[in-house]
Amino acid sequence: MSDALTGPEALFARLRAGDRRALARAITLVESTREDDRKLAEELLELALPSTGQALRVGVTGTPGVGKSTFIEALGARLCERGENVAVLAVDPSSAVSGGSILGDKTRMDALARHPRAFVRPQPSAGALGGTAPHTRDAMLLCEAAGFTVILVETVGVGQSEAAVADMTDTFVLLVAPGGGDELQGVKRGVLELVDVLLVNKADGEHLAEAERTRADYERGSGMFLRPLPGWTVPVLLVSARDRRGIDEAWRSVEAHRAALEASGALATRRAAQAERALWRALEEELLAALRADPAVRAALPGALDAVRRGARSPAQAARALLALRAR
Amino acid sequence: MSDALTGPEALFARLRAGDRRALARAITLVESTREDDRKLAEELLELALPSTGQALRVGVTGTPGVGKSTFIEALGARLCERGENVAVLAVDPSSAVSGGSILGDKTRMDALARHPRAFVRPQPSAGALGGTAPHTRDAMLLCEAAGFTVILVETVGVGQSEAAVADMTDTFVLLVAPGGGDELQGVKRGVLELVDVLLVNKADGEHLAEAERTRADYERGSGMFLRPLPGWTVPVLLVSARDRRGIDEAWRSVEAHRAALEASGALATRRAAQAERALWRALEEELLAALRADPAVRAALPGALDAVRRGARSPAQAARALLALRAR
Repeated sequence: MSDALTGPEALFARLRAGDRRALARAITLVESTREDDRKLAEELLELALPSTGQALRVGVTGTPGVGKSTFIEALGARLCERGENVAVLAVDPSSAVSGGSILGDKTRMDALARHPRAFVRPQPSAGALGGTAPHTRDAMLLCEAAGFTVILVETVGVGQSEAAVADMTDTFVLLVAPGGGDELQGVKRGVLELVDVLLVNKADGEHLAEAERTRADYERGSGMFLRPLPGWTVPVLLVSARDRRGIDEAWRSVEAHRAALEASGALATRRAAQAERALWRALEEELLAALRADPAVRAALPGALDAVRRGARSPAQAARALLALRAR
Repeated sequence: MSDALTGPEALFARLRAGDRRALARAITLVESTREDDRKLAEELLELALPSTGQALRVGVTGTPGVGKSTFIEALGARLCERGENVAVLAVDPSSAVSGGSILGDKTRMDALARHPRAFVRPQPSAGALGGTAPHTRDAMLLCEAAGFTVILVETVGVGQSEAAVADMTDTFVLLVAPGGGDELQGVKRGVLELVDVLLVNKADGEHLAEAERTRADYERGSGMFLRPLPGWTVPVLLVSARDRRGIDEAWRSVEAHRAALEASGALATRRAAQAERALWRALEEELLAALRADPAVRAALPGALDAVRRGARSPAQAARALLALRAR
């Protein structure tokens, strides 16, 4: 598999040359859990790394029904018009608590996906131990190396996926729908705390007055936004993804936020901290994967889990016992 | 250190006999990172395990200033009067994002701490990699083995400590203060999602009307409470910790929640899942600790971190390289 035509150098060369199928194949490699695929993936990522870092990395979240896909289609199309190359990745939380999958809709972002400057890729999250989309960050880097200048990483308001997305992007955009009175209800898990730009979607037709009230409510409640950045106040803006209104203003806020990150030096420090956390996560994953692959551990694990779940064994001692089993 | 007088069996016998100093010493052992202490701690926990599981495990959270310590003092005193043995543990987030420490106030819960049926212990969280108070769960088990029938685990509204506390307790109580209009502001990070019982404190004097409005606001916003339990609706109650009013009603809600957990079978499944997650966390911690203790890894780690932070090396490849260095 690692010959001159399909090895990492060849694949990377095709990816750099703008071959979408090579990019898709490379992302599949970084998502794979097969040992030989992972080695290839790491070589690919190492090749890609020097060509990364310039893109605008933007997380987009919002509860189902808020019009997120429509917004991303509208924004993506507008950015493509302006000469940006736009990649859309998604963290799918379907493996976690929630039921629905954002990947179920095969036709999502159909129009954008067909645009020659766009690349739309659903990104399954690995269902592993507490892991939320460990490889989305790698997919993002591959997209950057492939020449994409804007990376939109989409997630829905479930579980820890927002925190994971906020930890791999520079600017975190929350989309909300107009809602009377209890408009904060749908927004969960500290998402407000992560927000850099807040957009009230569906500011159109009969929703317009309610959208304006919602905007004012969020603006009054700006104490909820806690991401510290000197000189940055979270803007709360109206958009209509359906009517494609407010899209340019929303994007100007994203660009202004990026500028504030750069001016304050926070961009570099945030990205360095993100990379360091990714290293620790990679170490944890590798160590746990090696542990689970150990034959003696694998044989003893069901019994140990059962004893711990029944309260017959303490987690700490069960952990020690499992670790002691490993072949050296 | 492990002789007949100070070994785990002797310490455990004293702890079981109601010796508070033995309990304090045992908790210090489970908090220790020293290798010989940890072995003792694990033996202690194994001895303690058969005597655990009966207590009411209650998490209590609320932003600073909401009157949490006053409430816990009032509740603890009332429970002691009623013949319960009450242990108060705290997860201190001072090592994390926030500035303040809830341990700074040496006189906190002074009256309760002097009660013969109470045990008040601040519980520092380990500052390690993403770990929030990994040993608070163990301290809780030791308190249960020592005969405490109610464990109150306190945290403040910062970072991931609420999720950690919710993951080691059965019933999660949120305290809020009366607040006009923007009363949801101070409540962060998905805390609402974890809540089983919500109390509006300071329902006294001139705050009473505002407290009632806040209670009604939260009751209307009950869609925010997302912890699934058949037959349970999150109660929103008024209390005055200062005037010691509403305390019994609040406690009845906690007991009713425990009854609902038992009736639905959720208590057993939640605790089994909590124990399993504790096992995985223990495995991760042990594996990472062993990795960091490896001399070759320790020597290479600063350089690897620097390369990853600068973007010169991918996290995945740096992880592999570090793991390959280990002495076998």
